[in-house]
Amino acid sequence: MDRRFARLRSRMEELKDLSGVIGLLTWDQETYMPEKAHDARGQQLSTLQGLYHERLVDPRVGELLAEAQAMPDLTDDERAMLRVFRQERDRAVKVPPELVRALAEAQAAGVAAWREAREARTFARFRPALKRLLELRREQADALGHGGERYDALLDYYEPGMTVARLRPTLEGLRDRLIPMVQSLTRPERSGGPDVVAGKTFDGDKQWAFTLLLLGDMGFDLEAGRQDRSIHPFTGGSHPRDVRLTTRVDPQNPLGTIFSTIHEGGHGLFEQGFSPEHFRTPLAAAPSMGLHESQSRLWENVIGRSRPFWEHYFPILVQHFPAELGGVTLDVFLQTVNRVTRSVNRVESDEVTYNLHIALRFELELLLIHDELPLDELPAAWNDRTEKFLGVRPRDDLEGVLQDIHWAWGELGYFPTYTLGNLYAAQIFEAMKRDLPDLDDTLRAGRLTVVRDWLREKIHRQGYRYPAEELVTKVTGRGLGDEAFITYLKGKYAP
Amino acid sequence: MDRRFARLRSRMEELKDLSGVIGLLTWDQETYMPEKAHDARGQQLSTLQGLYHERLVDPRVGELLAEAQAMPDLTDDERAMLRVFRQERDRAVKVPPELVRALAEAQAAGVAAWREAREARTFARFRPALKRLLELRREQADALGHGGERYDALLDYYEPGMTVARLRPTLEGLRDRLIPMVQSLTRPERSGGPDVVAGKTFDGDKQWAFTLLLLGDMGFDLEAGRQDRSIHPFTGGSHPRDVRLTTRVDPQNPLGTIFSTIHEGGHGLFEQGFSPEHFRTPLAAAPSMGLHESQSRLWENVIGRSRPFWEHYFPILVQHFPAELGGVTLDVFLQTVNRVTRSVNRVESDEVTYNLHIALRFELELLLIHDELPLDELPAAWNDRTEKFLGVRPRDDLEGVLQDIHWAWGELGYFPTYTLGNLYAAQIFEAMKRDLPDLDDTLRAGRLTVVRDWLREKIHRQGYRYPAEELVTKVTGRGLGDEAFITYLKGKYAP
Repeated sequence: MDRRFARLRSRMEELKDLSGVIGLLTWDQETYMPEKAHDARGQQLSTLQGLYHERLVDPRVGELLAEAQAMPDLTDDERAMLRVFRQERDRAVKVPPELVRALAEAQAAGVAAWREAREARTFARFRPALKRLLELRREQADALGHGGERYDALLDYYEPGMTVARLRPTLEGLRDRLIPMVQSLTRPERSGGPDVVAGKTFDGDKQWAFTLLLLGDMGFDLEAGRQDRSIHPFTGGSHPRDVRLTTRVDPQNPLGTIFSTIHEGGHGLFEQGFSPEHFRTPLAAAPSMGLHESQSRLWENVIGRSRPFWEHYFPILVQHFPAELGGVTLDVFLQTVNRVTRSVNRVESDEVTYNLHIALRFELELLLIHDELPLDELPAAWNDRTEKFLGVRPRDDLEGVLQDIHWAWGELGYFPTYTLGNLYAAQIFEAMKRDLPDLDDTLRAGRLTVVRDWLREKIHRQGYRYPAEELVTKVTGRGLGDEAFITYLKGKYAP
Repeated sequence: MDRRFARLRSRMEELKDLSGVIGLLTWDQETYMPEKAHDARGQQLSTLQGLYHERLVDPRVGELLAEAQAMPDLTDDERAMLRVFRQERDRAVKVPPELVRALAEAQAAGVAAWREAREARTFARFRPALKRLLELRREQADALGHGGERYDALLDYYEPGMTVARLRPTLEGLRDRLIPMVQSLTRPERSGGPDVVAGKTFDGDKQWAFTLLLLGDMGFDLEAGRQDRSIHPFTGGSHPRDVRLTTRVDPQNPLGTIFSTIHEGGHGLFEQGFSPEHFRTPLAAAPSMGLHESQSRLWENVIGRSRPFWEHYFPILVQHFPAELGGVTLDVFLQTVNRVTRSVNRVESDEVTYNLHIALRFELELLLIHDELPLDELPAAWNDRTEKFLGVRPRDDLEGVLQDIHWAWGELGYFPTYTLGNLYAAQIFEAMKRDLPDLDDTLRAGRLTVVRDWLREKIHRQGYRYPAEELVTKVTGRGLGDEAFITYLKGKYAP
């Protein structure tokens, strides 16, 4: 390797180490950190983030990068590495430090105001903070540059390469197909049997043992990662050999625990699956949030809520909870697991209605970024869309526009990645089934590592070699679309 | 505050944050980190240590420091801050980067060779690595500068301000008084009753509960710190509001668990006791390892092995283990807790023989640094001294010169701080008893926070305002000496 390239690579390694360390500190903050360490941890994270930024925008790094890009004999991986690194560095260089600081302050103020507003159940308390965040995000989008669509610049942080022009028709088309599907699936005569979990208590330790069994079967390497408890489940860690999953254990809600573990396990397998030769480089990363989410949702919903999966695991679950689930049939259990419900709440919603919650957020985000919706009309706009899309109406702002923390962080452009995850998951699953014609039998035998191995080969070990949609096209033969997802839902919910 | 001073201070804060982060990563490495993350964690730590060094020796920091030291109107704390910071920075500047790298490599090689040598139970395998480490340490001492005594330069890392000229007579005098005392206390007729713990099994969860009760009573703030399990107990963490203790729970050895917790709790109280106005500055630190150790040993030995302490806690311990300890009297229990034994092993030794283990190491370290002892004679020199000081002789190198990891890390100058801890602890305890005439009754009532509050006021909140011996002199009226310690032992072990 050329010595100048090696120097650039060691800079990239330093940055990757720093971001890994930030990952570990954040994991610790949500798991084991003592309560009173909150402020100190904030300072430590802010120092590390400042150092990260400083080292990234260092002019010497820019020179090394320019020199490297001019080298004639780079490998494909090296070219990809430079592309991804330049993308990140350009973003960091373009946004002035004062704006970064102002955003950080507005985010902290935003979260505080959002919490107050939730207490008071009224959006008005949050409005001024949101106004400020929107102004700063617009400024940031302009600093980053765009072809006339500010939202594209923000979307690019989470879903590099994706645009409103590409996303809007997909999400609107999906919305228009899902609305009647939800109406049909939630008719009283389709509502299924009783909820087999409601009103019972499930021992937390046994829940925990069951989730670890699942993670092991999924092929999550518990010597290169672990699972702990936190209030909000997430996947973090410091390195592909140090992947930290968390879940929440609620004795009243064992399915919440189980599906959280499967979901985070899907994220965790992506992280553990990066190629060792990419470690400590920008290629040891998912190319987008949407593609990352495709892995968690493929495992959680497509695999984890399927009949073949539970043909194997339901008897094992019953062994863990003989008193609670002894008399329950697999059919009735599957109805509980796959129930479609019209709810005002995104987080608890099922895989059919979920994307309508995203569609309404995406539409409102566009209006907000374009400054086409007066902020005092936002709660009503939210509630109107909820009613139109889902047939239910939030009773107040807490049930409506205040339910998610994302906007309090000023995160605009993030929500669509959830739906991209669902769409990509269905597309990838279709390709998997073509390659693995015996997949149902494999699942019935609990041989989940077959799924992991296929995903590892096709998706995980690619890391950030290709942009998300390019990789999906390579793997599935098609770019982003909702056909696979609609086909999947229709197959699953056929009467 | 002057703007230039503020700039320096923000540099100090950045460095303190970095060292706190290193502390957390190290804690994680020993507690929760998955096995396969070992190499990645090594890289992350090395990156952070490199950044720490680079930021510390940054010439701009040197300029800011020089400017600050020339300012006429600094507070006492600011002057102390500059003194401590300059001390650290000077050391870092003086040791050339090539030597730092060579040392790091020799340390890694040293630990590997030491482990191999232990497997083979023969020092010869470790000798070449130790030779290299000694050469590099001599080189380092010369780079740091000294007045003719290389050991002083190394000692200064752990015990700033302490010298061989000061330490040697103290440790030799102590040795000469302890040798006959050990002979007397280990005569068969003094050997005490049966070991009340041996051969029994003590439930780990109950041990854990008892240690948490002790930590709470000691005034260790479990909302600003926590206790976890690790193979070797230690005190770490990232900040005075984030202090991480570890202990080891062995069902066969509950006293090991309990005294580890009290020991680490003593360290932890020091860390939690720094003044908030010193946080993120060089003053939020103990002035020396010896003074830090004085706190752990005061709690573990002077308080934690005392009769008044156990008059309160023994009944509580019996409540935790009624079957195991039900018939045991306090007297017999105290004999078990305070048994003096002639052993070849430092780690398991009691508070009387302990300092003889240190005396022998100190003498050998001086010979080694001065290159006055051929390395192939080291094992015999070790065994001869063990026999002379303790009346027992190691059967092989594993029981002798290979028992500690310190030299494998090239740590020379560290061992004496353990004895300094014992001596300072006795001196500080004497002063405490003068201030708190009812101390025995206080302990009998389990009111341990009275002890903590006194230590906090006199020692902890001072942080690194004064060098260790200066602070001890302020608190006790006397500098380093062994009188208080000898008096304490005589009082405790009087027939």
